[in-house]
Amino acid sequence: MSAPERPFDAVRRELAGDHADAAGDVRLDFGRERRSGIPEIVLGGHKPTSLIVEALSRLAITNGRSMATRLRPGQSDEIAVLLPPELVFFDHPSANAVVVARAGADAPQRNGRIGIMTAGSSDARVAAEAALIAREMGCDVMEAHDVGVAGLHRLVRPLEAMTAAGVQVLVVIAGMDGALPSVVAGLVAVPVIGVPTSVGYGFGGAGEGALMTMLQSCAPGLVVVNIDNGIGAGSTAALIANQAGR
Amino acid sequence: MSAPERPFDAVRRELAGDHADAAGDVRLDFGRERRSGIPEIVLGGHKPTSLIVEALSRLAITNGRSMATRLRPGQSDEIAVLLPPELVFFDHPSANAVVVARAGADAPQRNGRIGIMTAGSSDARVAAEAALIAREMGCDVMEAHDVGVAGLHRLVRPLEAMTAAGVQVLVVIAGMDGALPSVVAGLVAVPVIGVPTSVGYGFGGAGEGALMTMLQSCAPGLVVVNIDNGIGAGSTAALIANQAGR
Amino acid sequence: MSAPERPFDAVRRELAGDHADAAGDVRLDFGRERRSGIPEIVLGGHKPTSLIVEALSRLAITNGRSMATRLRPGQSDEIAVLLPPELVFFDHPSANAVVVARAGADAPQRNGRIGIMTAGSSDARVAAEAALIAREMGCDVMEAHDVGVAGLHRLVRPLEAMTAAGVQVLVVIAGMDGALPSVVAGLVAVPVIGVPTSVGYGFGGAGEGALMTMLQSCAPGLVVVNIDNGIGAGSTAALIANQAGR
Amino acid sequence: MSAPERPFDAVRRELAGDHADAAGDVRLDFGRERRSGIPEIVLGGHKPTSLIVEALSRLAITNGRSMATRLRPGQSDEIAVLLPPELVFFDHPSANAVVVARAGADAPQRNGRIGIMTAGSSDARVAAEAALIAREMGCDVMEAHDVGVAGLHRLVRPLEAMTAAGVQVLVVIAGMDGALPSVVAGLVAVPVIGVPTSVGYGFGGAGEGALMTMLQSCAPGLVVVNIDNGIGAGSTAALIANQAGR
Amino acid sequence: MSAPERPFDAVRRELAGDHADAAGDVRLDFGRERRSGIPEIVLGGHKPTSLIVEALSRLAITNGRSMATRLRPGQSDEIAVLLPPELVFFDHPSANAVVVARAGADAPQRNGRIGIMTAGSSDARVAAEAALIAREMGCDVMEAHDVGVAGLHRLVRPLEAMTAAGVQVLVVIAGMDGALPSVVAGLVAVPVIGVPTSVGYGFGGAGEGALMTMLQSCAPGLVVVNIDNGIGAGSTAALIANQAGR
Amino acid sequence: MSAPERPFDAVRRELAGDHADAAGDVRLDFGRERRSGIPEIVLGGHKPTSLIVEALSRLAITNGRSMATRLRPGQSDEIAVLLPPELVFFDHPSANAVVVARAGADAPQRNGRIGIMTAGSSDARVAAEAALIAREMGCDVMEAHDVGVAGLHRLVRPLEAMTAAGVQVLVVIAGMDGALPSVVAGLVAVPVIGVPTSVGYGFGGAGEGALMTMLQSCAPGLVVVNIDNGIGAGSTAALIANQAGR
Amino acid sequence: MSAPERPFDAVRRELAGDHADAAGDVRLDFGRERRSGIPEIVLGGHKPTSLIVEALSRLAITNGRSMATRLRPGQSDEIAVLLPPELVFFDHPSANAVVVARAGADAPQRNGRIGIMTAGSSDARVAAEAALIAREMGCDVMEAHDVGVAGLHRLVRPLEAMTAAGVQVLVVIAGMDGALPSVVAGLVAVPVIGVPTSVGYGFGGAGEGALMTMLQSCAPGLVVVNIDNGIGAGSTAALIANQAGR
Amino acid sequence: MSAPERPFDAVRRELAGDHADAAGDVRLDFGRERRSGIPEIVLGGHKPTSLIVEALSRLAITNGRSMATRLRPGQSDEIAVLLPPELVFFDHPSANAVVVARAGADAPQRNGRIGIMTAGSSDARVAAEAALIAREMGCDVMEAHDVGVAGLHRLVRPLEAMTAAGVQVLVVIAGMDGALPSVVAGLVAVPVIGVPTSVGYGFGGAGEGALMTMLQSCAPGLVVVNIDNGIGAGSTAALIANQAGR
Repeated sequence: MSAPERPFDAVRRELAGDHADAAGDVRLDFGRERRSGIPEIVLGGHKPTSLIVEALSRLAITNGRSMATRLRPGQSDEIAVLLPPELVFFDHPSANAVVVARAGADAPQRNGRIGIMTAGSSDARVAAEAALIAREMGCDVMEAHDVGVAGLHRLVRPLEAMTAAGVQVLVVIAGMDGALPSVVAGLVAVPVIGVPTSVGYGFGGAGEGALMTMLQSCAPGLVVVNIDNGIGAGSTAALIANQAGR
Repeated sequence: MSAPERPFDAVRRELAGDHADAAGDVRLDFGRERRSGIPEIVLGGHKPTSLIVEALSRLAITNGRSMATRLRPGQSDEIAVLLPPELVFFDHPSANAVVVARAGADAPQRNGRIGIMTAGSSDARVAAEAALIAREMGCDVMEAHDVGVAGLHRLVRPLEAMTAAGVQVLVVIAGMDGALPSVVAGLVAVPVIGVPTSVGYGFGGAGEGALMTMLQSCAPGLVVVNIDNGIGAGSTAALIANQAGR
Repeated sequence: MSAPERPFDAVRRELAGDHADAAGDVRLDFGRERRSGIPEIVLGGHKPTSLIVEALSRLAITNGRSMATRLRPGQSDEIAVLLPPELVFFDHPSANAVVVARAGADAPQRNGRIGIMTAGSSDARVAAEAALIAREMGCDVMEAHDVGVAGLHRLVRPLEAMTAAGVQVLVVIAGMDGALPSVVAGLVAVPVIGVPTSVGYGFGGAGEGALMTMLQSCAPGLVVVNIDNGIGAGSTAALIANQAGR
Repeated sequence: MSAPERPFDAVRRELAGDHADAAGDVRLDFGRERRSGIPEIVLGGHKPTSLIVEALSRLAITNGRSMATRLRPGQSDEIAVLLPPELVFFDHPSANAVVVARAGADAPQRNGRIGIMTAGSSDARVAAEAALIAREMGCDVMEAHDVGVAGLHRLVRPLEAMTAAGVQVLVVIAGMDGALPSVVAGLVAVPVIGVPTSVGYGFGGAGEGALMTMLQSCAPGLVVVNIDNGIGAGSTAALIANQAGR
Repeated sequence: MSAPERPFDAVRRELAGDHADAAGDVRLDFGRERRSGIPEIVLGGHKPTSLIVEALSRLAITNGRSMATRLRPGQSDEIAVLLPPELVFFDHPSANAVVVARAGADAPQRNGRIGIMTAGSSDARVAAEAALIAREMGCDVMEAHDVGVAGLHRLVRPLEAMTAAGVQVLVVIAGMDGALPSVVAGLVAVPVIGVPTSVGYGFGGAGEGALMTMLQSCAPGLVVVNIDNGIGAGSTAALIANQAGR
Repeated sequence: MSAPERPFDAVRRELAGDHADAAGDVRLDFGRERRSGIPEIVLGGHKPTSLIVEALSRLAITNGRSMATRLRPGQSDEIAVLLPPELVFFDHPSANAVVVARAGADAPQRNGRIGIMTAGSSDARVAAEAALIAREMGCDVMEAHDVGVAGLHRLVRPLEAMTAAGVQVLVVIAGMDGALPSVVAGLVAVPVIGVPTSVGYGFGGAGEGALMTMLQSCAPGLVVVNIDNGIGAGSTAALIANQAGR
Repeated sequence: MSAPERPFDAVRRELAGDHADAAGDVRLDFGRERRSGIPEIVLGGHKPTSLIVEALSRLAITNGRSMATRLRPGQSDEIAVLLPPELVFFDHPSANAVVVARAGADAPQRNGRIGIMTAGSSDARVAAEAALIAREMGCDVMEAHDVGVAGLHRLVRPLEAMTAAGVQVLVVIAGMDGALPSVVAGLVAVPVIGVPTSVGYGFGGAGEGALMTMLQSCAPGLVVVNIDNGIGAGSTAALIANQAGR
Repeated sequence: MSAPERPFDAVRRELAGDHADAAGDVRLDFGRERRSGIPEIVLGGHKPTSLIVEALSRLAITNGRSMATRLRPGQSDEIAVLLPPELVFFDHPSANAVVVARAGADAPQRNGRIGIMTAGSSDARVAAEAALIAREMGCDVMEAHDVGVAGLHRLVRPLEAMTAAGVQVLVVIAGMDGALPSVVAGLVAVPVIGVPTSVGYGFGGAGEGALMTMLQSCAPGLVVVNIDNGIGAGSTAALIANQAGR
């Protein structure tokens, strides 16, 4: 990361007539990583594959590496085919995501260390998304799965292993009753980021029950992102851990 | 309790012209206890005190004992003054409730044993209401307070004491994140009745967050009543425990 | 069922370094039945069939019997083909579920007796799910269908037959107006578990109308599970009935 | 009632420059009764008493009788004092309403007959409001109270008495679970108007649970008005009954 | 229609051991028409065609005519093929419904007259459903379409034609802003049944906006059914009109 | 109004070190009127009176005139007493607002003309607030009250008078069913700003029913502000009308 | 645009027996443009293509031009084939819309100038819809895309370009956090119409979060339309701009 | 802070029979600070003052300092009077909070640095609460108020000052549209904790609009706590900053 910018430096440049931060037809925010510490990420969603490839390519050429998430089934293969040959392609199917890099542009090595936990196996995609962005931002990531509160004993080993390893922040992912982040936040002395997932059924089953539970937690030290937002949790965790690990 | 009725016996009596179950101007359901095993309870709420006294008196004279809940501040004193002298008055201020009895009409002794837990001290009134109705229905009640998941170690002793004592059902009361019933239901082999309370703030803070969490619980063996419904939880728990304790 | 555990015994074992309760890659909770009286159930949902088969197999080999629910159309046939030959396969299409057993590992015979009712024929799948888990837990189950409050006379015979037969708990399942559990709870002296279903339309039609009605019931003795949660209702009913039938 | 108007006659008069229907500063709709068969009603709410008195007076002088509802405590006494001496004052405290009449201007006698039922005693004010407007519109009203579904036998006698008396429509008022209108509509061959009330607690307790239940009813023949809307139910019932009783 | 029953006569028969009202495996309510004045209707929805055919046949054989609604595309053709030859088949594609009759069993002729209006052309299916049940119940039905409040002049002719023809009740159907029933109820002296439809978009667009508007109407004389409930509106309108037209 | 600023001129000044736009402890936005054409308005709400007086004074001294809204009962009198003697005080009790001015600083005279309508007399405060800000911004305002859709003829004269007078925008204010703005927008060729009010009861009665209806309107040409937001509607209407009247 | 009508002229014509405004089976509102300044628009949605073609043709023949929106994929090609040869066809695929015109019937040239902005590239279809209707109503439209608040500097140039060019109104379109309209309304002196879009995820992700934010904006001068309502925003903006540009 | 515990050490002690962490009648969590890095805080709310004093005293005696929040008006004076003389009392009226300390037990000095911003002056109490807990946990806190997005230039100076000073985390507090945290998170490279407040009106006005906006933010690096939860935001910020500042 180059020398830090002041918050309004991009605005200053714009007002001074320098438009380097947002050039071209596809209005990519090339300066986001410099400004916010988090890379610009291409959200796949309903975008045509050609547009995703163009964005990935231009960001990788400018910044070294780039990433696309929320890809449709089969879309990563299409991207692999269409990429310019000078770019290296990394598939992350468990996260529905791909990473693209200029040759030699490795992910940075910073000193942040993050623990990621899920309550159930259906939360895995969100965990993979969080782990991917955190690693791209230079963090070391430990994971543990399926440790929800319905079988509390399953939590003991992985949680003690993570704190023993010195994680500086925990990302705790849960759908259904969403109770795991509250329980964990009551047990540890590092910040916990809760991620509700859209795993559930009936009343509150699209994730709003899990979200409510986390927002209502009695345990301070717990902050929350929106339902299924692995990128938001992973990138904020990396900001926290990298600062702490300096 | 006299010999059990068939479900439609009160309807049969009505169709046959016998109106003993619902006589008089104040349409009290004198037969409820015989029919459903749970005493008719007078909900104070906004009723005038004189009406509450009349209902309590008539029910106690017919059935031996009667009970009023959700009383306004100071109302139990007014009731004590207005009761006919042949009735005995028991104040239960922590439950906002009173019990009235004919001389010698003690609460029954059945063999049910119930454990009642609260996550926080603000849940105490709901717990007192549940305990009162369960004792009126003949159960033995154990209580533990302030054992919410933000400090999980507090749960160990009281929960193991209750199961060691052989409780046949647990009533677990929690506001805020409402996570305690899920955790408990994952640890025990008796049915758990979760009671969300209107303790909370912000999004989901009127109890709907706690309710959602309990309904979304990953732990089977957990059933739920409406927010703050101590009477519903306590009376159902008594039905369960008294059957089991026969 | 072997001698009962204390609630925190699994935690004790973990802290002591004994990880028998949750071994292997697929983190199955082998000790759930011993701990909570309810078998670990494999939720089909979106899991790949191979994963379901592996879980069913390992649970059946360890515990004698195992069960998977919420299967996709055609999935039970795929499971039947993939199962190891030493395991016996039972298809329960009306419940979208299968049971798998080691040869000779019959369902237990306990003495609980449960009545299950539905308001309309669209509630049948939920009833089948509840009945299946209750029978797996050793209960005798009586069923009656299509007895909703729009034609009250249809309720008379089945309800009186169930109480005459000595059911210790009723599971009452209703979508739309969800009124049946309230009516039933006002007529009987056993606990009633209401199950709202996602049968309905327009305002409140995803089951939240039925859920609200049941939570607001004037009849004490009624507890509730989440929308369409047949497993939760059936397993809790079995815990209640088996205790009472001891 | 004078000869019926065509729906747009008031608009015709306006376009022709005749403003008799809505003269003066307080824009009262003097023609409403002629146009819609229902008297213009003064909603008390937060209006100053002097404004209510003026409206009542002008409507009574023009149309013979007038009515104000939703009065604040003590407001009916203030109105009685302020009314011009040539107008007769009728207090209806159970409905929070007053009626004012020119001497000799009696309520009409039409032939409609209406039954009004409540599930609980807390629904009485809404019932009184419905009964009052129906009687002002010339109907004969029968009432029965406290016949909710938690004690189904209480419904038998009053409902059979009402149908035996030939009511042409039933107004069925219920808070909490709101189940009574569904049950009644399944039993009778006259239209039923359900009125949810804001009697309840917790989830759905402001009347929206009762409203949902009524809208989701499986029994056709049931229509609904908004929560606590006794005037809407009573006046529509009177329109129905008076047509049928012609 | 035979001589009217008392409300609890079907219950009386059940208690007396006479089960004619609900015989057989498919628990059809053969007595509904006799009891409630409205025929039992087979809701297609997700039922298999064979079940629908069986229900239609048995109801038509017992009661003369029967009806199924909410059919899937192509399902009416399947029903036509499978019906026993002695039954006559009437397709109502605009209502997604079919009628089946014994030869010679015509719909009754009573004297009710109903007006049905829609705000937009997307509301047509709901109107067709309402008209069909009303005609099956013996009413004369007038219809007008596309008269929503965005072009108020379109309402003039059809509304004045309907009132001139003496309709005894109006069914007014509207999605989107749902304003038409309020406007109409302010113009006429007959009861109005508002039907919100699931036509809309964005906030409130599943019909709940239209429902709220109708429930909040300032015009008394307006009652409401649930979103898209043409059967409920049409059948209640027929009860009202047939009484008035006697 | 002085020469128009560019949107980012205030940011430019800040970046250049000139802090004139937001000086002092109470961070008033002195430049808002210059930047956005709308005066900075002091929201009373729960602020202490002394703070309101200080803000009013400083804004009036800098900009000529200032305004405070949402005052508590009696607060305008307190303000009148505490104002510096060189400022002129105008009370607007119907709007719960006050205006303060330097001697000689009259409201501007621009050429915008606005029509403001209410559906019911309870909407008057919101209308007064809208009219006040529009007049402060130099517009000519016409008002009509109590013209809701339950008596459509009342709308004819005032609406035709307003369009004849050449209003360039209409502010239409309605609670309850909120139908009036839709009806009006279908009749006129000028933009309509709908203002839902918190007048209502039961389901949707805090203004959300009226808001939904307005957002769902079938009539294009209708835009909306939040519930009870008279200031937002009046100030936007003034921006529109003043541009049109230039 | 011909000489302006009075609001009730279409009603007058109806009452006088002249039905020119709404003739034929398909009840098109031929007079809408004359009455409201906004052309009648055919909403594609689920209508059959033949009906859309008929409506487009009749409106274009009568009024010169016509437009259909919300077309299904491939539907514009079907329309092009089915149109009568004397009509000219214009495809607008980015808006899912088509325009049809009589030869020589060009869109009008008025003097309104509108700026349209989107926060993200997923908002493009809504922007295209707004731009199309505004151009059909004679406005000059400037557009800028992808200027959301997560990269504030991107807003500087396009916003200053638009105000320098003298736009009289801004349409600001945003999903997700919906914050852009608030920021813009705080920076400019022209009215801003906010359009929330259904772009988002999790809690509030169907556009209701963006809608709430816009309705809660602290910046006066902002009005709102329903989620995704490009037509409503564009047509109201054109009414505003054309008045201002006269 | 003493040597860090393992997460389950308190559970270990309990299982081993050592109950030091939760002794006494008032079940205070004396070990929370050691376990989670955040002091146990006494929530005033509706607790009686004597209970608050007892809890404050025991915590201060054990841990050196203690704190109570959400006090009722006048309650801090009552507490000051009732405290044992050996404890020092610090009143924080702007935060509705008090701190109590043993003589000489100063707040720790760690190296975390936090920036706290509010959008409007009504958010001040929440900011004061966040600042107080952060200072009690040893952080250096910078504050800026009234910098909401309606006047974007006000944000420039304070934000650049905070980042220049090296804050490691920002707490950004906003009601109404809640847009400020999104804007800030797009400008800085440190984690941002958004706090929605219950400042607003109409639709979304109890804080849920602000909460939705923050959860939907396009800017990664933003995490959220529940409405008005200053303690949660401040304590998590302190955990983050103190780690980073080590």
